[in-house]
Amino acid sequence: MLDITVICMGRLKEKFYIDAASEYIKRLGAYCRISVLELSEARRPSSPSDRDIELAMEREADAIEAALPKGAAVIAMCVEGNELSSTELSEKLSAMASGGTSKIAFVIGGSDGLSDRIKSRAVLRLSMSKMTFPHHLARVMLLEQLYRALNIASGGKYHK
Amino acid sequence: MLDITVICMGRLKEKFYIDAASEYIKRLGAYCRISVLELSEARRPSSPSDRDIELAMEREADAIEAALPKGAAVIAMCVEGNELSSTELSEKLSAMASGGTSKIAFVIGGSDGLSDRIKSRAVLRLSMSKMTFPHHLARVMLLEQLYRALNIASGGKYHK
Repeated sequence: MLDITVICMGRLKEKFYIDAASEYIKRLGAYCRISVLELSEARRPSSPSDRDIELAMEREADAIEAALPKGAAVIAMCVEGNELSSTELSEKLSAMASGGTSKIAFVIGGSDGLSDRIKSRAVLRLSMSKMTFPHHLARVMLLEQLYRALNIASGGKYHK
Repeated sequence: MLDITVICMGRLKEKFYIDAASEYIKRLGAYCRISVLELSEARRPSSPSDRDIELAMEREADAIEAALPKGAAVIAMCVEGNELSSTELSEKLSAMASGGTSKIAFVIGGSDGLSDRIKSRAVLRLSMSKMTFPHHLARVMLLEQLYRALNIASGGKYHK
């Protein structure tokens, strides 16, 4: 059984996103060990310079690296990454599992995305869309896609 | 001010999607006239044949055509459509508005998607992702992107 960790920056605030995420986490429990880690976003000044943002993202990268489960393959979520269909994501996860990868960590950055340090250690940069979604909505979208992917892999009927 | 109608099949059932959609509809009110029309999904037998599905989608297409505001330019949401970034969507909406299009209808199909009849009358087939999302989540994603697009067009700070 795959051991999946989703590492996210910032706490969900909107109740509707918290409830939607909980629903998919509950459903995912049938297919994998799933945990969601919420890390604090590094503080930025109210009108941050590029350098302020860069420094904040580096601090966030430190926190992400510290939180990564030992031996986990990292999948970095980024708008410019590879776009996969739901079926391709399902096949990718199955291929990783058969290839001996038992731990996967998906990482969703904060409002400024992920630093290159995290992207460059990822085995896959995954994009769900060319559109920019708020990172809290992206979390719900990713959890739904993980549920869909594992349901497809198990021959379930959720996906058609 | 743009007059935007989002035509969707089926009522949202999950409270978290209802609440998320309401939030973006409320925010959109600052930028456009927005209405969301929920049409009933046509009934399918419990194990529908391809022909059953086709007939149901045709009935849904009839209902969509009847619901389209007169003179509205149709944008059909489909996974195989054109992918635009949030900025490109914003530019597209602005270009339509300056070109004299004041009414736009976005159409999201039901669980089987949209019939070719609707797709072929659309001025744009828009895809938010190569991934298949449940149509109820797609509604929230679209409303968020419309809010983002109109915020970008107005020089707002929501998008960065």
